Amino acid sequence: MTDNRRFNRVLIANRGEIALRIQRACRQLGLETVAVYSDADRESRHVQEADIALCIGPAAASRSYLDRDGLLLAARATGATAIHPGYGFLSENADFADAVEEAGLTFIGPTGTSIRMMGDKIMAKRTMLAAGVPCVPGSDGPLPESPDEILALAEKVGFPVIVKASGGGGGRGMRVVHRAEDLIEAVGLTSREAQQAFGNPTLYLEKFMQKPRHIEIQVLCDTHGTALWLGARDCSLQRRHQKVLEEAPPPGIDPAVIAEIGERCAAACRHIGYRGAGTFEFLYEDGVFAFIEMNTRVQVEHPVTEQITDIDIVAEQLRIAQGDRLTIRQEDIVFRGHAIECRLNAEDGLTFLPSPGTVTRWDLPGGPGIRVDSHVVSGYTIPPYYDSLIGKIIGYGATREEAIARLQVALAEMKVEGISTNIGLHQDLLANPTVRKGSMDIHFLEKWLEERAAP
Amino acid sequence: MTDNRRFNRVLIANRGEIALRIQRACRQLGLETVAVYSDADRESRHVQEADIALCIGPAAASRSYLDRDGLLLAARATGATAIHPGYGFLSENADFADAVEEAGLTFIGPTGTSIRMMGDKIMAKRTMLAAGVPCVPGSDGPLPESPDEILALAEKVGFPVIVKASGGGGGRGMRVVHRAEDLIEAVGLTSREAQQAFGNPTLYLEKFMQKPRHIEIQVLCDTHGTALWLGARDCSLQRRHQKVLEEAPPPGIDPAVIAEIGERCAAACRHIGYRGAGTFEFLYEDGVFAFIEMNTRVQVEHPVTEQITDIDIVAEQLRIAQGDRLTIRQEDIVFRGHAIECRLNAEDGLTFLPSPGTVTRWDLPGGPGIRVDSHVVSGYTIPPYYDSLIGKIIGYGATREEAIARLQVALAEMKVEGISTNIGLHQDLLANPTVRKGSMDIHFLEKWLEERAAP
Repeated sequence: MTDNRRFNRVLIANRGEIALRIQRACRQLGLETVAVYSDADRESRHVQEADIALCIGPAAASRSYLDRDGLLLAARATGATAIHPGYGFLSENADFADAVEEAGLTFIGPTGTSIRMMGDKIMAKRTMLAAGVPCVPGSDGPLPESPDEILALAEKVGFPVIVKASGGGGGRGMRVVHRAEDLIEAVGLTSREAQQAFGNPTLYLEKFMQKPRHIEIQVLCDTHGTALWLGARDCSLQRRHQKVLEEAPPPGIDPAVIAEIGERCAAACRHIGYRGAGTFEFLYEDGVFAFIEMNTRVQVEHPVTEQITDIDIVAEQLRIAQGDRLTIRQEDIVFRGHAIECRLNAEDGLTFLPSPGTVTRWDLPGGPGIRVDSHVVSGYTIPPYYDSLIGKIIGYGATREEAIARLQVALAEMKVEGISTNIGLHQDLLANPTVRKGSMDIHFLEKWLEERAAP
Repeated sequence: MTDNRRFNRVLIANRGEIALRIQRACRQLGLETVAVYSDADRESRHVQEADIALCIGPAAASRSYLDRDGLLLAARATGATAIHPGYGFLSENADFADAVEEAGLTFIGPTGTSIRMMGDKIMAKRTMLAAGVPCVPGSDGPLPESPDEILALAEKVGFPVIVKASGGGGGRGMRVVHRAEDLIEAVGLTSREAQQAFGNPTLYLEKFMQKPRHIEIQVLCDTHGTALWLGARDCSLQRRHQKVLEEAPPPGIDPAVIAEIGERCAAACRHIGYRGAGTFEFLYEDGVFAFIEMNTRVQVEHPVTEQITDIDIVAEQLRIAQGDRLTIRQEDIVFRGHAIECRLNAEDGLTFLPSPGTVTRWDLPGGPGIRVDSHVVSGYTIPPYYDSLIGKIIGYGATREEAIARLQVALAEMKVEGISTNIGLHQDLLANPTVRKGSMDIHFLEKWLEERAAP
């Protein structure tokens, strides 16, 4: 089995900065790369650098980066025997993972079964509870029938609570309830809405955390039973559920507490036979971690973990997929310094509308502690068809203060012309007292933007 | 005294990548910067970024970057109360250091006395011997008069020996002697040549090391008696005494041996009351370290030490110059991973002749472990008046192999047009078996270039 999984040519089923990131890791390990691209990405940097490059369709992702059959065909045509899905697109599509493996190729990621299990919110939560990962307290399954039992449950959990549709997700089909007297009416309303929206009236209930932080744990698991946790990241700075700035380690959280949660995440991975890189996302408030979901792929913010651990997460994904044993031991992982990532978007600074176009100037910052992950070069045209992420500036320092200071210098040095970017937003964030204290919750950024926009 | 030295505006008496490096450190610490530039450097990146920029003369360095009075005048005119000399130019000019301090400004470096002491080869060696730093065995002073005594000395030191003129330097006024029967004639010849060339027939004698490596120790000393050593660098890859590629730590040398030498260097600094950053340069062969000279300034290759220690050497120079105490303790310095620096020169790949001109494409590499220190941006014109260094690509990895692999990917990704560079030379070096084994001596690069050039 292990030997069957060996490969020396990898198809990168993605675009933009993550395609280049994967390509770097492949080349570093001596693996050949196949770039697949849509008509809109012909000039992209990783396409130019690939050993083989193949156009797989028009700009529309549904006919290129999301075209499962097209991707399998491209692998066959180019002799690639492994596929790295990156993030987004097909990276968490269990059917695609299965199809890749059924075609005799290596899917660089977990099994379809693992992806499917974590894609189902209630199943994921039940699995984590069984494995000892702390979850948001609640009904841990469908609500009971009787109003008295529902009320008793909510009182036990403690108000405010949030009533959620089992079939919901992405912010839909949920209602926050602050007082006992409003609960039963809210349950009735949400259930009817859920029936209408998802064809399923089943509800569950959770404690509503009011000012939580978003904290996540990175894991790496090989196919020989070893599961490691690589520390935590704070990704609380979000706008419309999109992370904007991430850091590691999370400021102000006791490393011993993180270690305990980390051990539980690793244990859960062993419990479910997880393979590859993954992230356990938590809400964190008043010292309590509560599992939300697991992402079964590499994340945009993986560099901040790489910077403080010296572990190359994408290279490890490739090694694990080859069937290699992890050579790192948990006790050898030392967290050193502090890293912060600013996601660079091509977008209007005020309206946040995408700002595609030709980049006429792209002068990068540099010096100690500055890492740049970007597929953009001067003269590159950012197509309007995909998300607006054009790169990441990662600042590292011996301390959080040093990481911030270096990022501030780097953002001031960076010169971009031809498009609009959110560099100014990052500069404002890094100058903000709440951010500098490290005490931001997941609502901070949106509230602050509202206040800033107010006349 | 300490408070008098405080400053908040720094004049950077240099150009190119090191001027930008110093500017980054200043900005990170909240210090204002004054860029001084020659007519040829008007468009340079750090000039654009400075709080104040002042043209100090024409392209010729003697009338700009080497013009001591002009620099002092520029400091007075701009209100800068401290001067950072960088490397080269006036950085090791004791009279300039004295003049800066006499003008009531802070020289960001050691005292004129320290610079003067280390600038005199024999005085430096005697100082180091007295402080317990191992030196090349030899006469430790002028040769005795009688041929018998000279012979006895050489026999004691062991052949081959090198006879050097006390007033010589830079490869001139020296002769290697392999056999006892040739010694006295060689002494006579060298002495007559020395009299002619330097007006001083005095000679001294040292053991000739045949295939040494160049290993150096970085130190940092505050004005309160604390002296730290920050590990060693291997800079054996040189062409015409110019370093080409440097790394830290030196491959294959027992860290305990480096620690012992490091402690002696730090002790020597305390002994002479040294202040600021400095480097002890050694030849190393068969497990033996032999002091050559001390550089009393920041070095081009300082980033490899920064990468493995997490210590920002230029920021520490600024703090020390302010009179601050070093907050790092020797026992807290942990060496982690491996870093290699490739010096990028604008030069012809075969003839090594400078290749100034306008850079029409400058696409930088990036990703994990890649640091770029360069003042070049696309569209920048490299003037023909100064040295050909246009930047440094520093590769870091958890292991030496990872650092090499990352650098190889980075060099392949880097795209430069409009000028010639030595990127190809670095690619060849990183692919070379001797370099990959880490067993290069100081003659390796020149021999290899000769062999490569042979028909």
